[in-house]
Amino acid sequence: MPSSNNRKKIRQMEKDKVGCYEFLAEPFHCDFSQRLFMGHLGNHLLNAADFHSQDRGFGMSFLNTIDRTWVLSRLTIEMETMPPMYARFYVETWVENAKRFFTNRNFCVKDVQTGEVYGYGRSIWAMIDTKTRQPANLLEIKDGAIAQYIVSDKPCPITKGSRVNMGADAQLVAETVMRYNDVDINGHVNSVKYIEHVLDLFDLSWYQAHRLRRIEIAYVAEAHGGDTMRFYREDGEDGLTFHIRMTKVVPNSDEEVEICRCLTAFVND
Amino acid sequence: MPSSNNRKKIRQMEKDKVGCYEFLAEPFHCDFSQRLFMGHLGNHLLNAADFHSQDRGFGMSFLNTIDRTWVLSRLTIEMETMPPMYARFYVETWVENAKRFFTNRNFCVKDVQTGEVYGYGRSIWAMIDTKTRQPANLLEIKDGAIAQYIVSDKPCPITKGSRVNMGADAQLVAETVMRYNDVDINGHVNSVKYIEHVLDLFDLSWYQAHRLRRIEIAYVAEAHGGDTMRFYREDGEDGLTFHIRMTKVVPNSDEEVEICRCLTAFVND
Repeated sequence: MPSSNNRKKIRQMEKDKVGCYEFLAEPFHCDFSQRLFMGHLGNHLLNAADFHSQDRGFGMSFLNTIDRTWVLSRLTIEMETMPPMYARFYVETWVENAKRFFTNRNFCVKDVQTGEVYGYGRSIWAMIDTKTRQPANLLEIKDGAIAQYIVSDKPCPITKGSRVNMGADAQLVAETVMRYNDVDINGHVNSVKYIEHVLDLFDLSWYQAHRLRRIEIAYVAEAHGGDTMRFYREDGEDGLTFHIRMTKVVPNSDEEVEICRCLTAFVND
Repeated sequence: MPSSNNRKKIRQMEKDKVGCYEFLAEPFHCDFSQRLFMGHLGNHLLNAADFHSQDRGFGMSFLNTIDRTWVLSRLTIEMETMPPMYARFYVETWVENAKRFFTNRNFCVKDVQTGEVYGYGRSIWAMIDTKTRQPANLLEIKDGAIAQYIVSDKPCPITKGSRVNMGADAQLVAETVMRYNDVDINGHVNSVKYIEHVLDLFDLSWYQAHRLRRIEIAYVAEAHGGDTMRFYREDGEDGLTFHIRMTKVVPNSDEEVEICRCLTAFVND
């Protein structure tokens, strides 16, 4: 058992490794149930990831100077409940592990006042060379700086995202063109916008009776402004789980390219 | 000329009257030019208005307890430049005047570090009775509390929004259904979402050559989730100014109801 001094040191080390950022559930970022939209929560998680990596020397701003950038490969969010309007909440984030081409980053969302945990998130990031668009070895950045920040034992009690299977029954449920507001600083469709487009596949009346508990999204390829996206949906047997595939239509052809896959799991409200 | 003591008092009074709130131009809230989206700036202005009125006792949370709420009637934003990614900026906001049924609230957006003014905003708000949906006398709230906070002489050097004229030449340019993510805590389409839908009428290639300098929007009636909205656009003679009318289609009819009117003024970039 570590001595009291050692325990203090361990706590300090963990503090350095885990980032903690405060956010507000802004009223205009809340849905009709007066709780934060999942899309805005997703945005806060991405901000927390950005602040955490920036503060530790391997953030986007630095990476851009050496022709590297982070690419979000997978995001899973599972919420016991969503922060209500005006709640102040922390997003804790830490690196669970880092291998050559992928790193796992986790999140915990908790209320500032009560400490109540609203939910957790998991994400997988790759690094790419912005010139060649090829995967880059993230352990080479600043002599493996990221390895100093690994916290492998902090609990993140939600199951990892897994491959979202799409059967032959998936139905084309929507087609929409990516517009100016969908496109991010890199000229690609913003990761959070996919989540919003997926959640817009469900009617308001669905949300009146159901709460989104878990969302998994796997990013396969990039879409751009002007792309026509198609949404295919397969409804799970429980009536609450949905598998969604997004494709983009290759211009002047019938061909489609898969852009991402998503799982949404609701509970009766 | 006021004495030094009086000048101090005047400064303190102005400080109490003018609210000042800090925001960050978050990277995922920026467009491909790496500057803040107008929609997200609009959201920050609405937040500042909410915080300012909340802090002074006539905010939404209090009003809801007495069956009243603020309704945004008109918003005008004119920007010399947009805050770049990661810029910290202040939104100053103050009440320019308050009459029975309308109050004018202004905004100034300035950089935290340099003090550089990015631009200004003007808005007009009405108060309604949430039960009858009828206009309510805002000077009756807390014995006219709002009147203590009027700052009539702080400069807001942009012209007021005026009626956006629509001629017979306006063309139907888009039709879109309002979805889950468009709807706010009151069950209506979010004021900022109209701005985003309007700006999505212009292609990315337009934004590559033009910068949005000014937007005016007048809210006429409320739209709800599930409503089909139509967008009519009339192009100004300068090739840079556009008048846009949004209508909602009355279900099972050919009738349309006007929801808002908008003016967008671009400059060559």
